[in-house]
Amino acid sequence: MSGKTKSKAKFVSRHRAPVGAPPGTLVHDERASPTGIRLTVISNDHVEEVADASLAAIEKAMKSGKRLWVDVTGLADLELLSAIGALFSIEELALEDIANTNQRPKVDTYEKHALIVVHMFDGKSVDSKEQFAILFDGRHVVTFQERPGDCLEPVRKRLRQPAGRIRTRGAAYFVYAILDTILDAYFPMLETIGDELEDLEDKITKDPHPRDVGRLHQLKRELLVVKRALWPAREMLSAMSREELGLIPSEVGYFLRDTYDHAIQLIDIVETYRELATGLLDLYLSSVSTKMNEVMKVLTIISTIFIPLSFLAGIWGMNFTPDSSWNMPELRWRYGYPVALTIMVLIAVGLLYLFRRKRWL
Amino acid sequence: MSGKTKSKAKFVSRHRAPVGAPPGTLVHDERASPTGIRLTVISNDHVEEVADASLAAIEKAMKSGKRLWVDVTGLADLELLSAIGALFSIEELALEDIANTNQRPKVDTYEKHALIVVHMFDGKSVDSKEQFAILFDGRHVVTFQERPGDCLEPVRKRLRQPAGRIRTRGAAYFVYAILDTILDAYFPMLETIGDELEDLEDKITKDPHPRDVGRLHQLKRELLVVKRALWPAREMLSAMSREELGLIPSEVGYFLRDTYDHAIQLIDIVETYRELATGLLDLYLSSVSTKMNEVMKVLTIISTIFIPLSFLAGIWGMNFTPDSSWNMPELRWRYGYPVALTIMVLIAVGLLYLFRRKRWL
Amino acid sequence: MSGKTKSKAKFVSRHRAPVGAPPGTLVHDERASPTGIRLTVISNDHVEEVADASLAAIEKAMKSGKRLWVDVTGLADLELLSAIGALFSIEELALEDIANTNQRPKVDTYEKHALIVVHMFDGKSVDSKEQFAILFDGRHVVTFQERPGDCLEPVRKRLRQPAGRIRTRGAAYFVYAILDTILDAYFPMLETIGDELEDLEDKITKDPHPRDVGRLHQLKRELLVVKRALWPAREMLSAMSREELGLIPSEVGYFLRDTYDHAIQLIDIVETYRELATGLLDLYLSSVSTKMNEVMKVLTIISTIFIPLSFLAGIWGMNFTPDSSWNMPELRWRYGYPVALTIMVLIAVGLLYLFRRKRWL
Amino acid sequence: MSGKTKSKAKFVSRHRAPVGAPPGTLVHDERASPTGIRLTVISNDHVEEVADASLAAIEKAMKSGKRLWVDVTGLADLELLSAIGALFSIEELALEDIANTNQRPKVDTYEKHALIVVHMFDGKSVDSKEQFAILFDGRHVVTFQERPGDCLEPVRKRLRQPAGRIRTRGAAYFVYAILDTILDAYFPMLETIGDELEDLEDKITKDPHPRDVGRLHQLKRELLVVKRALWPAREMLSAMSREELGLIPSEVGYFLRDTYDHAIQLIDIVETYRELATGLLDLYLSSVSTKMNEVMKVLTIISTIFIPLSFLAGIWGMNFTPDSSWNMPELRWRYGYPVALTIMVLIAVGLLYLFRRKRWL
Amino acid sequence: MSGKTKSKAKFVSRHRAPVGAPPGTLVHDERASPTGIRLTVISNDHVEEVADASLAAIEKAMKSGKRLWVDVTGLADLELLSAIGALFSIEELALEDIANTNQRPKVDTYEKHALIVVHMFDGKSVDSKEQFAILFDGRHVVTFQERPGDCLEPVRKRLRQPAGRIRTRGAAYFVYAILDTILDAYFPMLETIGDELEDLEDKITKDPHPRDVGRLHQLKRELLVVKRALWPAREMLSAMSREELGLIPSEVGYFLRDTYDHAIQLIDIVETYRELATGLLDLYLSSVSTKMNEVMKVLTIISTIFIPLSFLAGIWGMNFTPDSSWNMPELRWRYGYPVALTIMVLIAVGLLYLFRRKRWL
Repeated sequence: MSGKTKSKAKFVSRHRAPVGAPPGTLVHDERASPTGIRLTVISNDHVEEVADASLAAIEKAMKSGKRLWVDVTGLADLELLSAIGALFSIEELALEDIANTNQRPKVDTYEKHALIVVHMFDGKSVDSKEQFAILFDGRHVVTFQERPGDCLEPVRKRLRQPAGRIRTRGAAYFVYAILDTILDAYFPMLETIGDELEDLEDKITKDPHPRDVGRLHQLKRELLVVKRALWPAREMLSAMSREELGLIPSEVGYFLRDTYDHAIQLIDIVETYRELATGLLDLYLSSVSTKMNEVMKVLTIISTIFIPLSFLAGIWGMNFTPDSSWNMPELRWRYGYPVALTIMVLIAVGLLYLFRRKRWL
Repeated sequence: MSGKTKSKAKFVSRHRAPVGAPPGTLVHDERASPTGIRLTVISNDHVEEVADASLAAIEKAMKSGKRLWVDVTGLADLELLSAIGALFSIEELALEDIANTNQRPKVDTYEKHALIVVHMFDGKSVDSKEQFAILFDGRHVVTFQERPGDCLEPVRKRLRQPAGRIRTRGAAYFVYAILDTILDAYFPMLETIGDELEDLEDKITKDPHPRDVGRLHQLKRELLVVKRALWPAREMLSAMSREELGLIPSEVGYFLRDTYDHAIQLIDIVETYRELATGLLDLYLSSVSTKMNEVMKVLTIISTIFIPLSFLAGIWGMNFTPDSSWNMPELRWRYGYPVALTIMVLIAVGLLYLFRRKRWL
Repeated sequence: MSGKTKSKAKFVSRHRAPVGAPPGTLVHDERASPTGIRLTVISNDHVEEVADASLAAIEKAMKSGKRLWVDVTGLADLELLSAIGALFSIEELALEDIANTNQRPKVDTYEKHALIVVHMFDGKSVDSKEQFAILFDGRHVVTFQERPGDCLEPVRKRLRQPAGRIRTRGAAYFVYAILDTILDAYFPMLETIGDELEDLEDKITKDPHPRDVGRLHQLKRELLVVKRALWPAREMLSAMSREELGLIPSEVGYFLRDTYDHAIQLIDIVETYRELATGLLDLYLSSVSTKMNEVMKVLTIISTIFIPLSFLAGIWGMNFTPDSSWNMPELRWRYGYPVALTIMVLIAVGLLYLFRRKRWL
Repeated sequence: MSGKTKSKAKFVSRHRAPVGAPPGTLVHDERASPTGIRLTVISNDHVEEVADASLAAIEKAMKSGKRLWVDVTGLADLELLSAIGALFSIEELALEDIANTNQRPKVDTYEKHALIVVHMFDGKSVDSKEQFAILFDGRHVVTFQERPGDCLEPVRKRLRQPAGRIRTRGAAYFVYAILDTILDAYFPMLETIGDELEDLEDKITKDPHPRDVGRLHQLKRELLVVKRALWPAREMLSAMSREELGLIPSEVGYFLRDTYDHAIQLIDIVETYRELATGLLDLYLSSVSTKMNEVMKVLTIISTIFIPLSFLAGIWGMNFTPDSSWNMPELRWRYGYPVALTIMVLIAVGLLYLFRRKRWL
Repeated sequence: MSGKTKSKAKFVSRHRAPVGAPPGTLVHDERASPTGIRLTVISNDHVEEVADASLAAIEKAMKSGKRLWVDVTGLADLELLSAIGALFSIEELALEDIANTNQRPKVDTYEKHALIVVHMFDGKSVDSKEQFAILFDGRHVVTFQERPGDCLEPVRKRLRQPAGRIRTRGAAYFVYAILDTILDAYFPMLETIGDELEDLEDKITKDPHPRDVGRLHQLKRELLVVKRALWPAREMLSAMSREELGLIPSEVGYFLRDTYDHAIQLIDIVETYRELATGLLDLYLSSVSTKMNEVMKVLTIISTIFIPLSFLAGIWGMNFTPDSSWNMPELRWRYGYPVALTIMVLIAVGLLYLFRRKRWL
């Protein structure tokens, strides 16, 4: 299990066509989830969901003239992917981008349809990142996700409600609704990161601990993953809302500009958090320096006071014989011991006074 | 109370529509202040203020043909917001942006009116940040603020004065006056931050203390908040003063260019302060390093002088029996003790000379 | 006095109109110097200077049809400023920018004249920064400076010389001469900073001292002030030399491009010095680290050699009674003491050899 | 051997024409590999490979009207290079760029053909970097590589397969296939770097070791080499896919946009890895600081506890004679020793309590 | 002599016209080299060089209708410079830029000719930097250098060869040849810096020494000087190869694009080296931290083992009288000494085991 968690955390998906393969080559990925198809047939007054649809069912539904949402989950079955590609006349380069889950967010326009790639999170953890591809033409929408489970339940709910705009407006509006929902799911995830950062801020301010730096590094990594997902998504949304692609009517462009605004907000948050994280590392390091300083001061004060005193005790512990009156006469004085102790106390007090003047105490 | 202060300090407002909600969804925020409306009816020769206006009063005033400033304070009452939206035919996406206090400063132009979002401070503390939304058409101005209390008292005063330009010129000039006042309030706030930075500079130069780094981090955070408010505001002002939006006549554009100049000045100040703060952290760290060095030198000097001397005292404190003439004959010499002390003094003087040559003293 | 020096060093002038004041409000600044006017009446064959001109004198000179340079020094007398504004029909926003000495360098074009704002230094110290505003139309030039004393003496000298181009060419050329002189005065000031930086470089390379970091921080601050003056000045000069403002004939644009070149050179120098200062801080910190290392090595070597030896001396100084032959028989050996000393010497030599192999010596 | 590895690792190839040589000068490089030519004659239904082709064979094949791929390996034989240059009418500046293996990736268009320069890696190690030049016109493709061995085996395989698009489409498609394969080989190489980085991350998090920093520095260096290869390659691919060069038909431009996408992905990976490496250095340094702190604490605790105790033992080890009752009477008390031991234990316990309160334990 | 080397190393030349001087003022620089003129008369079939030409000789040569290269070395003789200026009708601003050796690389076009300024190095050391100005019109080329000695020998050699293109093509091609040669001389200089950097890299990796940081700082400074020379040179070359200046025919633009490519390569190298230098500083600092850690560990281990043992030896060295059976009975035990030694060995072994578990050994 831990191996799997680790592979998810990798920045770069290892799945890609071999070096030098001709364009359009699909390559089996042994870690891919098994492929399942969820078909939603949409008309203005009715919505029908088929949980595990077959190719034949899709073909039949296409002929009914209704609008379809084909949601493909798991990319293990390359033959099925190719068959879907054939059914919706998907270009081979587009299909390769769908299967190789290594893409940056982007929009590619082909003759008859457009392909959108974004990174989807489950709204909780950055580790849940998966590639989400949307292929749509004037009527149908085909989506491809890496694993079961997504953040699109609200969209499905809105589809089921009779009066939803999402049913009556065309495929482009539906694509907008999906994109908007995927980007919306970035907010709670970033809030979690923000909460952790502010928690770390408290901890580092009060009592810095090495484990905080590890956590900080982890959060910076996660912000890097989100940043890599967001910057190209912004470009993509800008291109989509600006350009007259033929497939996106201007009234949907109006909504996409709102989604674009959200992407800008998200980028703003990510950059703020990254700057905050950098500030926290500085705070930690200066705090460690300060603590080290404090520790060293204690050591230095204790050593500086007692080392000279111990030296004196050592002197008077020497065994020079009293045969000669030159040898350690002080040991034989009447008040030798009290005088010695007094000297020691004076030295200690003097040093303490010095330290206080140096503001070490 | 301290909990509330903390929630204000968060970079990102937690208030937003749930993931995947349809566009235009308004969501109740339990922390929102209760909604109140302050109505100002403006005509060239008379200004009437109603402190707690009802919807009906606004509707009636609209029909009088006079120009209105509807100032909505607190966003808790979503029904009231929707009713105001209906009254002034505000688009649902605009209303969502007004209610979700998570927006970056921006200007959005709709068919009949424009929506401006800025961040307002009370001129004293960065913690007072709130979203301020201005919706205006050719005649009326509707403003929405998160909490009671703002920095717009001077605008109200100017309205009350009979000869003010602010009465006679149209809604766009009035919007300019509000924007200019809000941005003006950034200046005293930044001056406070600047004073604290220069105070910290003094302290760190003279006697650096760990608490200074915490304060520095806090100031950097506050500057980050102001930066996030100012950069998009600059873009917004540039777009407003440049573009022919139809709603902003060129003579107001001329004044807006002055406000734009102020925004540039503010950004310049923020960037300067951020650079200063970075320099102060460097200063602190190098100061801590230097202090540590000084502490270590004291420890090393004391240890290096007394450790060898103590060793000698230990030697002559050994109990080898004098039965053999090989055993510690020096203890029995006539001048053994004075010679021993002399040797010790010579060693100490020699080491002090070495330290002086190494410039450690 | 020291308080005044301090207020000068502040990055941001505290003088501005109160928050929300109507545009064009002039506000008295109690720290402003008293206002004086120096009038220069220029014709091709004669130049007349009046040291302390009255408003009436200016008005009379204006009617003579000759070209004027009205040099206003000190901005305390707001009424006089307004009167001059009325005389030369200066827009109220322009007058506000002149009086509020908080402006970034810029050029604003109005219907009949243009306003240029730059930062002027006395060519020696960054602390001498003051705002210098130039207002000119096709004939006259009005300049406003914060304090008596400037770097324009060379311009006045050139005016007095009979054959100077500066007399015969129009107001735009005269403005160019002023701007060029003000920017020229940046060079000696930056050279001073450069000399100090190279002096610091020498010191830090040879014998780093904490006071060097303080000085470095000070120089970085000064470079920040100069940078803030230069970057917008470059934009301003670029706009002036490029644009056909109507007021600047193309042959003066040709000279302004030379001034623009100087601004670029100055920015290049500032950026180089800033990078050098950053490098010096790195040098200082690595030097402190290295010194600390050296100090620690000395402590460690001394301690590591003498602590075990002292331990041995302590062992042989114990008072186990010789009643039992098991108790410290070595003390009673014939060669006990020489053997003990030999063991100690061997240990010391062995440790020294180890340290040499670790390259600590 | 190690010397050779070292010279490869140099950032800048030392091979270039002498200073001031006329343009087009070819200079012998003694380290260059011997030149060999591999000729591939391509027609739609047949592909013929000649492993060690002579000039004459190339000339003959050219006359046959078939399309050629002349793959020159090793740049030692300048005469042969010139002869090939003459055969394909290569401009002298282009030939100089081919022979001087110091070029940044670029595309240069000449009257009749285009020259592309990229950096090729073997897909495993950054040290394998070599300059790869592609010269092509409407029919033929001539490639120049520095050393035998490349990553183009998949292209050769695809050529040998009867049904490959690569045979039937023109020279531009063939150039695309080569470029795409070369860029594809960056992926496994970067994956290796990524694996090492994540391995280092584990190590530094658990148990940082100085050798990790050396490895980190090495990886940063390698990323710098890849960055220098990729950024200009992106520009080149953008120019090629955008521009109508006449030589690149739009359907190949469509494929090149895919290769351009790969370049962007690669740059994204490189930048992410560079940022990760920077984060790891921070992690290492803060970890070393923390460890130092821990070590210092142990030293300080041990010293602070035992130094005062040893001092007391030293006191009671002094030899003041008991002749005077003032001299060390405690040594003669009945419970002197137990009391002394108790005092020592109390001091130790007290200090431990203090350290616990300071959270040092 | 060392003073002279120092003044060369200054970033900013101190030579410039006084503040406020009228445009075109030439100022005597006491450090300038004496002026000498080298005249080269070029015709397609003959080249004549005059080592120390007089003004009259130049004037005569001009009348002969042949093309001239007037190479002025040393800028001390301002009168001579002015005379040359008059001879070739050089604008006064251009002449000022030539004499004030403080210019950034640039190209200025005047009515009849163009002025190019670059920084020239001797190909070995960054300290050899001097300003090199090229003034040319359709026929003649006048160059100004600060000191005798340059890197243009190869150009002179090519001029002397009968068949050289450099003779027959016009002045623009000749200017290209000079520029190309000057930029080519950057390569060996940067290679020297690169060699030193890689040498430092080896040293710092193996055995870091404080002197390495000083050298690193020096190299960064040198790279800063080269950077300041190269960035504006790139702009200049781009402007020259792009623009139709009238003076530069398109076939020379084709060659200049090659020189522009070289400038880009050089900038790429400089940036790479700067990044490498930054990485080396990090490596040094982390290496110093690590070494300090190691030193501290040794100190701590030795102290922590021997301080408690010495304490025990001190205890048993106390002089409590055996009159009371409570006083140090262990000293009188039969196996007291062996037991004491055993206890000490056990403590030492126990501590060593602890250190091993903490991975300090």
